[in-house]
Amino acid sequence: MGSLGPYQRKHKVAVVGSGNWGTAIAKIVAENAAANSDIFEEKVEMWVFEEKVEIGKDSPHYDANFSGPQNLTDVINRTHENVKYLPGVRLPTNLHANPSIEDAVKDGTILVFNLPHQFILKTCQQIKGKILPYARGISCIKGVDVNEEGISLFSETIGKTLGIYCGALSGANIANEVAREKWSETSIAYDPPHMDSKAPTPQRSPTSSQVDLVQFQHRDTSGEMSKVKLQALPSDYPPINHDVLKTLFHRPYFHVRVVNDVAGVSISGALKNVVAIAAGWVEGMGWGDNAKAAVMRVGLMEMVRFGDKFFGATINQRTFTDESAGVADLITSCSGGRNFRCAKLSVERKQPIEEIEQSELNGQKLQGTLTAVEVNNFLKKQGMEEDFPLFTAVYRILNGQMKVDEIPSYIER
Amino acid sequence: MGSLGPYQRKHKVAVVGSGNWGTAIAKIVAENAAANSDIFEEKVEMWVFEEKVEIGKDSPHYDANFSGPQNLTDVINRTHENVKYLPGVRLPTNLHANPSIEDAVKDGTILVFNLPHQFILKTCQQIKGKILPYARGISCIKGVDVNEEGISLFSETIGKTLGIYCGALSGANIANEVAREKWSETSIAYDPPHMDSKAPTPQRSPTSSQVDLVQFQHRDTSGEMSKVKLQALPSDYPPINHDVLKTLFHRPYFHVRVVNDVAGVSISGALKNVVAIAAGWVEGMGWGDNAKAAVMRVGLMEMVRFGDKFFGATINQRTFTDESAGVADLITSCSGGRNFRCAKLSVERKQPIEEIEQSELNGQKLQGTLTAVEVNNFLKKQGMEEDFPLFTAVYRILNGQMKVDEIPSYIER
Repeated sequence: MGSLGPYQRKHKVAVVGSGNWGTAIAKIVAENAAANSDIFEEKVEMWVFEEKVEIGKDSPHYDANFSGPQNLTDVINRTHENVKYLPGVRLPTNLHANPSIEDAVKDGTILVFNLPHQFILKTCQQIKGKILPYARGISCIKGVDVNEEGISLFSETIGKTLGIYCGALSGANIANEVAREKWSETSIAYDPPHMDSKAPTPQRSPTSSQVDLVQFQHRDTSGEMSKVKLQALPSDYPPINHDVLKTLFHRPYFHVRVVNDVAGVSISGALKNVVAIAAGWVEGMGWGDNAKAAVMRVGLMEMVRFGDKFFGATINQRTFTDESAGVADLITSCSGGRNFRCAKLSVERKQPIEEIEQSELNGQKLQGTLTAVEVNNFLKKQGMEEDFPLFTAVYRILNGQMKVDEIPSYIER
Repeated sequence: MGSLGPYQRKHKVAVVGSGNWGTAIAKIVAENAAANSDIFEEKVEMWVFEEKVEIGKDSPHYDANFSGPQNLTDVINRTHENVKYLPGVRLPTNLHANPSIEDAVKDGTILVFNLPHQFILKTCQQIKGKILPYARGISCIKGVDVNEEGISLFSETIGKTLGIYCGALSGANIANEVAREKWSETSIAYDPPHMDSKAPTPQRSPTSSQVDLVQFQHRDTSGEMSKVKLQALPSDYPPINHDVLKTLFHRPYFHVRVVNDVAGVSISGALKNVVAIAAGWVEGMGWGDNAKAAVMRVGLMEMVRFGDKFFGATINQRTFTDESAGVADLITSCSGGRNFRCAKLSVERKQPIEEIEQSELNGQKLQGTLTAVEVNNFLKKQGMEEDFPLFTAVYRILNGQMKVDEIPSYIER
């Protein structure tokens, strides 16, 4: 323990969620926890929603001693591979699959949330009060929750429900590429109240377990300020700051830039899907690269404008234009993401996008079409459809009120 | 002439250059001149470097009365098609191909320059003193002239040589797509000294031919301020302002945004080619869309930084991130432009890029490789290679000092 410097304790990391993207992120943080044992406990917990899997005889993981249906967690811990959701990718041995969410998170000082957004609230309610009160969260869940009343960030839903501070990770990241260590970048946004000191030396006695409660105001666009009592990290832990988060997430193949703008990083991840739908249509029309770039440029400007109008000074416009979560994710999503591809197909096959969702995604809904409707409901309520002609055009085309042909003249204004 | 409002005279437009892009732009301005006869003379001159062409029997323009080699200008004026440089595109009948550059420009109040950059200086010297002293120019020539000493803009070379003010047009524009009226956007930058009033009403008697001489300072990065005596437009012409330029260039298929930032628009058009080389290599490596978007993001940030460092307050950072000449042109160039394609091939075929230039471009040099070398010479002289790791990496890879594999770790800093 002598190598710990001034700190007596190390951070314990738990990943909540183990799908494709959840497992890829768990792999990264486990690699970094192992490589930075002065800051992190080596063992990283990953909560896995338990299910039965069967390992076929043709699998490299087949073992006659373990035939028949087995628990996914047992298989992961034995083979170090998430055979169900990230097959073919070797996981670090210090990553522990845990079927009990309560057990997985109970000692975690850094909780990484990475699960489908429809499960966030329920999952957080399940562990509420069963986590360290001074834990900090990072949400890797793309997008935001938009309804007529306003926009709420998933990181804030998590933070409010659990009574902790939660930042966000988002970027031009296709899970399978990241898992296979193809180089990419990401953005982490983390901006807790000043109580999380950025100074490397503790301000109080390292053994003190004194807790500070601050009224942490969650901002959302409804204008409601919900206050969360935030508890200070005991000073015998290294402070959780930008450096520590970079150490936990940055890999040679996964470049991290840490910024403060949680709202900017989060809404980029939602709005870029709406732009990707438009880009897919334009590509499907065969209008060429100039036209596609034009739609992307207009979309990027509407993203900036959206941030500016509804989050004002709490957002940094440059998040959209400079960061991986902004312009780079937009570019990736307009190159080959599923919103783009399905929109392109719908023009090429002259089919409504719902039919493409049916045939290509087994009826799963695209994120971009859902967001386009939610954003439009919100803009309509604000009387601001006109200020966002591309977002509005996407909604109206989905709705049958407009044709793709009309995009250029409609966004010209 | 009663419809002229307060102005007695109309603008006469001349296009200098008639290649692929020159003819596409000439088509646009001729269409708009015809549609806005209250502001522009209907007849638009296009200077064509005269050459002989032969119309084959299988051409729709074959005419037994005109067999054998003919003057290109005669063919254009008879068939309304630039059969040599923009075949298959019908030109407006009010566009007049003129083999005499002196005659083409002599009455022009708005001169549109669109010719290969190596001919700019010679061409301008040829017409110096033979144009209206109060003419204004728009340069459609992509890029800038970079050498060890500094960066000079083609628009400024034109302006200085002719003693006129010259703005710039640049955007995500592939000539053939624009000519075929596929929708795209462009940026026009125009920021003359205040003497070019933006007010729609003349400040002086409309018939006055009084001329104001102002010392117009051309800025370049060498720090040298060259002063040009600029002559005011006689007040019986409509002022040449953003509205008039938009009227002249904007079409339903060619959307124009007029900005003030001539330097930003111009250097975007040069630097994006360096980024496109890097993007092509990454694509050739098969690193996926995330990696390509990462390189583009880093490249965009270096473009912003370049503008900021060397043009300071005279440049608007948002030109790079918001305008067609910036982010949109970058996207197009990294999708299918020739720099991108040749760089991609050079990785796929494991051949030096010079060999690809040989086999794919008949030995013609890529703009991006030339600019990468010029920019590196300049940065080296400034001691600033380190501040532009992507630009520097591109130079070093071209040079054989670095490998494409090293890009991620090199730009990580």
